[in-house]
Amino acid sequence: MAKIADIYFKVDPWKIIEEGFDPERSMVAESVFSLANEYMGVRGYFEEGCSCDSLLGSYFNGVYEFSKDVNKTAYRGIVDHTHFMVNSVDWLYTRMMLEGEQLDLKNVEFKDFKRVLDLKEGTLTREFIWNLKSGKNLKVKFLRFLNMDKTSQGFQRIEFEPINFTGNIEVVMALDFGTIHVSREKNYWNIVKKDKSEDIAAIIGETLTSNQRVFSGFKLMSNGVISKSTYESDKLIGYKVKMSLNQAEVTWVDKLVSNIVVKDSKADNEYIWNTGISAVKEQADKGLNAALSDNKLLWENIWNRFDIQIDGDAKNQQGIRFCIFQMQQTYHGQNPTNNIGAKGLTGEAYNGHAFWDTETCCLPFFLFNNLKAAKNLLEYRYSKLERAKERAKMLDCKGACYPIATLNGEEACDLWQHASLQFQPSTGVAYGIWHYARLRDDKEFLYGHGAEMLIEISRFLRSRGAFSQLTNKFGFYAVMGPDEFHMMVNNNCYTNYMAKKTFEYTLSVLEDMKKFSKIKYDELQTKVHFTDEELQDIKNCSDNMDILFDEESKLYEQHEGYFALPHIDVDSIPVEEFPLYHNWSYDRIYRSDMIKQPDVLMFMFLYNQEFSTEVKQANYECYEPRCIHESSLSPSIHSIFAAELKKHEEALDFFGFATRMDLDNYNRNTKEGLHTTSLAGAWLNIVYGFGGMRSDGEVLTFNPSIPKIWDSYSFRVVYKEAILLIKVDKEKISFRPLNGLSVEISIYDKRYMVGSEGIVLPMPEGWRG
Amino acid sequence: MAKIADIYFKVDPWKIIEEGFDPERSMVAESVFSLANEYMGVRGYFEEGCSCDSLLGSYFNGVYEFSKDVNKTAYRGIVDHTHFMVNSVDWLYTRMMLEGEQLDLKNVEFKDFKRVLDLKEGTLTREFIWNLKSGKNLKVKFLRFLNMDKTSQGFQRIEFEPINFTGNIEVVMALDFGTIHVSREKNYWNIVKKDKSEDIAAIIGETLTSNQRVFSGFKLMSNGVISKSTYESDKLIGYKVKMSLNQAEVTWVDKLVSNIVVKDSKADNEYIWNTGISAVKEQADKGLNAALSDNKLLWENIWNRFDIQIDGDAKNQQGIRFCIFQMQQTYHGQNPTNNIGAKGLTGEAYNGHAFWDTETCCLPFFLFNNLKAAKNLLEYRYSKLERAKERAKMLDCKGACYPIATLNGEEACDLWQHASLQFQPSTGVAYGIWHYARLRDDKEFLYGHGAEMLIEISRFLRSRGAFSQLTNKFGFYAVMGPDEFHMMVNNNCYTNYMAKKTFEYTLSVLEDMKKFSKIKYDELQTKVHFTDEELQDIKNCSDNMDILFDEESKLYEQHEGYFALPHIDVDSIPVEEFPLYHNWSYDRIYRSDMIKQPDVLMFMFLYNQEFSTEVKQANYECYEPRCIHESSLSPSIHSIFAAELKKHEEALDFFGFATRMDLDNYNRNTKEGLHTTSLAGAWLNIVYGFGGMRSDGEVLTFNPSIPKIWDSYSFRVVYKEAILLIKVDKEKISFRPLNGLSVEISIYDKRYMVGSEGIVLPMPEGWRG
Repeated sequence: MAKIADIYFKVDPWKIIEEGFDPERSMVAESVFSLANEYMGVRGYFEEGCSCDSLLGSYFNGVYEFSKDVNKTAYRGIVDHTHFMVNSVDWLYTRMMLEGEQLDLKNVEFKDFKRVLDLKEGTLTREFIWNLKSGKNLKVKFLRFLNMDKTSQGFQRIEFEPINFTGNIEVVMALDFGTIHVSREKNYWNIVKKDKSEDIAAIIGETLTSNQRVFSGFKLMSNGVISKSTYESDKLIGYKVKMSLNQAEVTWVDKLVSNIVVKDSKADNEYIWNTGISAVKEQADKGLNAALSDNKLLWENIWNRFDIQIDGDAKNQQGIRFCIFQMQQTYHGQNPTNNIGAKGLTGEAYNGHAFWDTETCCLPFFLFNNLKAAKNLLEYRYSKLERAKERAKMLDCKGACYPIATLNGEEACDLWQHASLQFQPSTGVAYGIWHYARLRDDKEFLYGHGAEMLIEISRFLRSRGAFSQLTNKFGFYAVMGPDEFHMMVNNNCYTNYMAKKTFEYTLSVLEDMKKFSKIKYDELQTKVHFTDEELQDIKNCSDNMDILFDEESKLYEQHEGYFALPHIDVDSIPVEEFPLYHNWSYDRIYRSDMIKQPDVLMFMFLYNQEFSTEVKQANYECYEPRCIHESSLSPSIHSIFAAELKKHEEALDFFGFATRMDLDNYNRNTKEGLHTTSLAGAWLNIVYGFGGMRSDGEVLTFNPSIPKIWDSYSFRVVYKEAILLIKVDKEKISFRPLNGLSVEISIYDKRYMVGSEGIVLPMPEGWRG
Repeated sequence: MAKIADIYFKVDPWKIIEEGFDPERSMVAESVFSLANEYMGVRGYFEEGCSCDSLLGSYFNGVYEFSKDVNKTAYRGIVDHTHFMVNSVDWLYTRMMLEGEQLDLKNVEFKDFKRVLDLKEGTLTREFIWNLKSGKNLKVKFLRFLNMDKTSQGFQRIEFEPINFTGNIEVVMALDFGTIHVSREKNYWNIVKKDKSEDIAAIIGETLTSNQRVFSGFKLMSNGVISKSTYESDKLIGYKVKMSLNQAEVTWVDKLVSNIVVKDSKADNEYIWNTGISAVKEQADKGLNAALSDNKLLWENIWNRFDIQIDGDAKNQQGIRFCIFQMQQTYHGQNPTNNIGAKGLTGEAYNGHAFWDTETCCLPFFLFNNLKAAKNLLEYRYSKLERAKERAKMLDCKGACYPIATLNGEEACDLWQHASLQFQPSTGVAYGIWHYARLRDDKEFLYGHGAEMLIEISRFLRSRGAFSQLTNKFGFYAVMGPDEFHMMVNNNCYTNYMAKKTFEYTLSVLEDMKKFSKIKYDELQTKVHFTDEELQDIKNCSDNMDILFDEESKLYEQHEGYFALPHIDVDSIPVEEFPLYHNWSYDRIYRSDMIKQPDVLMFMFLYNQEFSTEVKQANYECYEPRCIHESSLSPSIHSIFAAELKKHEEALDFFGFATRMDLDNYNRNTKEGLHTTSLAGAWLNIVYGFGGMRSDGEVLTFNPSIPKIWDSYSFRVVYKEAILLIKVDKEKISFRPLNGLSVEISIYDKRYMVGSEGIVLPMPEGWRG
């Protein structure tokens, strides 16, 4: 299982730097250099066009198209259509001609290529000197960024600096809806309208069958345009501009682009058009420089709350900042109709779908820095409640079943063995509500949308489970837990445990509501029609939940019969057989005790403080050797356990590539897009792992440790409005609220009130790596 | 679960009669009136064309086309292409015009319609009086039959008898490769050559991608043709003939058709053409009448060995003869490259594929009447051994894995959950070899092809199974037994038991070979490279096979955890929810103790005498109430157990629709084709059920019983060359060898030598219904 780094980018604490261009790595770089602002995302492709390998990807959060050609002879409950985040307008479209040569870095001569993603400022710049056949040399510099606040705004600047000549250049700048969704080899856009005035070119595209529209419009500003003509084709509109360049002087052109998504199929095209044109004007009035300054401030504010510092490990320092940066770009809670795709907005893989790790693994990232974002993730699920209820019906169940993969709330996973057997999304939503409610006293949400989701999820779980005729215990039959290497098992421990917690929490919230907010309770009862009998029935299922725990060994059995399965020594599997899905016959994966990712350890991670160290140790030692980590999150979860169990070497080993999964292309598939949830995993790994933070008890607790190779590290969490800076070195641990607000926390099992001056504790024995 | 007869055909001991034509039932009648001779099959469609519902099906055994549009993103071991028996040339193509009216029974006026399938003679006749608008009335009579010996020969005769006029009629008689494969809405034939001389019209079609060719040629003979012209289109060739008809006289035209299948892609077209033309000439030289007489003799010979008589139950009398007739038509061992499709040669459903019931359920039908046919079924599997070895490799296993569904030996089931988890076909082949070898001392086969298949199947099973780390027992993980309502279970009792028997038998055959036929043993060892260590390893697996049997309850547990599953009272499921696959969500079917068809009872049926009555009773009483019989064979297997356990009412209840499943369209899907394996099930139900025959012991044994409503019944089995007639009535049971050869059998647990005069025993207490 040795994963090997493919080191390409230069190490820097705040930047990702590419010096010289390697066409073999062009698509990996495109993924790494992706920009996004939750609303839209654009891969780091060369906007001037390049005949090198490229996935020219421009995406909008939640803009999808349907695929109807799936499971033609579907049985009931198996999806017969799916949807995917669709490649959209190339709003950076640029072409340039000089002396009859077209700029294409695959074909022209160039030198001093440098591309830089600036994590502090949120910009992507690229520069090189184009050496023309005529002997003329032109320095070209590109800048792009997305407005993190006014998220429909994208910016592009091109600077020209002739080294040894004076003359004119022709540049095409346009908007192109002719983009191909590469994995499906098809363009999915009809053009509703396109038009230009002298100043503004704009276009509205509409997806072929989902009928979602995107307005894109732009205005050019420049210090050197001498003429401008319309440039147009079927699905493209823009200008061809002629610019005069003077030797050793910088001539620039800015493209100010507003992209507006319209999901409401009833919206009027003229209204959309006019709104869009106004937006472009407003954006242009402000100009690129002012927007850039604003954006820097926004990023500064983000880093003030989110930054993690690692001293003595420059690579991980760069890596973790890249993770935080990309996570922020993917999602920051701007809009409750957005969620977090498994590849964010950086590629087509996984179809842009959100999975169950949103609530279990990404939510904590926001819970401690941006509670609004955390809440919006939960509101997203509420907005899809009706779809989840339809899905439950498709499965002959009651209540609400959240989909295993989705953008629009419909189940989009066309593999029935996952879509019909995995209930992590539903218990995950309940877990998310619980986790959120522990950190924010938001009864408005909890007694409203939260409670409604809880009762509908509990209903679903109640109807999907059943009682054993042998034990009379309640449990789930024919399911698949987070470990996807065991399918159609009975009483999977994760599923049963999470369902029990869901039942308990639902009942406790309803009880509180009845006591403290009878009006809301009555409203909810009227809306969803639950009865005391139903609640009693749920309590009965909860009380009789079959949790396969053995007192003597302290082991949870992953599912019925797991310990009797044939054993595989996972270390004996040759490296070249990974990934197993490609190299083993499908059924072979499912018939041993080998597991894909934590299952028992996963619920012990989520409800950490419910388990004694002894129980954690026993289960870690049982399951860790059986796990092959085919999920990128898996090593981080194991690292967190190892840190808690004071296995510091192991914790560091598992941490390994967590922060640099994509920077060093460990899985050799970064070209398809970034591993978004593993970005969150890297954060968890530092904060919950080395930081030893736990958020499932009464107060936030910490048991920090430090790996041998680090001098020190620090991280920040916002807890009860205090921005807590936690610094850990080999000798001491310090806690200080950056904003001066005091807060009660627990450190190494002792309670402390951290006041404005902070506290410093010595690093205890055993926690040093 | 009440299945209700749709009574349509007239009851007759030797005929299936339709009087009057019901367009609503046209496709059901097409299936029931199918003719076949193993080599080819043709549904009972109206050859003159009809705009009523019709599945115009003409099939050749083993002539298939590929479907490549399956499981596009297949994991390893999951099939990415499949094949299906393809609808072929309509060699009965006829059109007729009289006075500007075209004969089409949907549109013209007619009376006295009668269609008769004669089971004794193997002919299908149809007659009616066509009442023309002009007032003219023409009696038309069609006859068709297929040569059961020279199987490439088909015959059609049309007779005209004008009731009230004299005049001419125009008849087109042709060969049409333009047939549509209805379920795929496509024609799959290219025309390689077509031509006609004055006498013979012929055509060669070739499938689009599998490149199989079919030659079809015919000659017309008639007593009334006055002129003949070519009639031709893209994929069709034939003649338009003008015939003169005289009032009250019969004018006839015979079409003598030779259809020759060429699977060898290297065969030369000219050679095929010339061979075909010669065949047509030879067939025509003999003429229809002579062929018809020969065919009657062939059928007489079949009935002499196969007939079953039931006195006092005219419907079942007709039903069982229909079953025997159709089974003979589907297969009689003419060619070892043929097998038995689930719908025989009568429709497109199940793609013409053979399943695992060939060896377990159809083979006995032939073992007791036609050992050559039985052997050919096994030779078919030998001819597909290389494909089975390839399939094992696809599954990362060794040896040979026989496919769950196939025509050409490749796995053609595109549902991985069946193709990758069900090993009944492989253990079924081993069972078939064992069963055959008990009844025929054929060491040539057993020590040659038989032993080679056995060792390869054992190898596969050895490599697919594994040892539990808890019990150190050997077993199979992630499998599906015959009961398809439990998927990915561990240690399915059927799979483990059948594998143990396969291992034991393989080892015992090899041991015998080593002792008695060292040369063959050495040859086999050289060919398949087995070692003593490998055999020892197989023995170890066999000795340690995990068979889930509880001494106290006498119950076999269907698989690990089965008895702990949630219980469903199958009688409480509303009738309208059947079939469950259409009405329940897919996963719901898999999570209770409800079973689809016998699983534990199935291996107890196959190795009946290994189990005490006490054990059979306990398991029958446990599993019977949990079974919903979604396989048409299921009731017959239960009936056989009920008869043995002297539950005579239950035995009769389960016998129910066994013989008339298709005649009375119990499943309402007979229009798609006949339920071929249930034809065999009906035979098993009488011979093994009421007849109480058992063939898995040292000699053939009988425990006959008789249902209350029958006066008497008799059946015939060929055993050690004696044609034994067994007659059972309420008072006595008689055994008599029709050909005078004496044979030793066991009756009610006592051995008897049945001599030429036979023996008669009184019906004992308890065996009378």
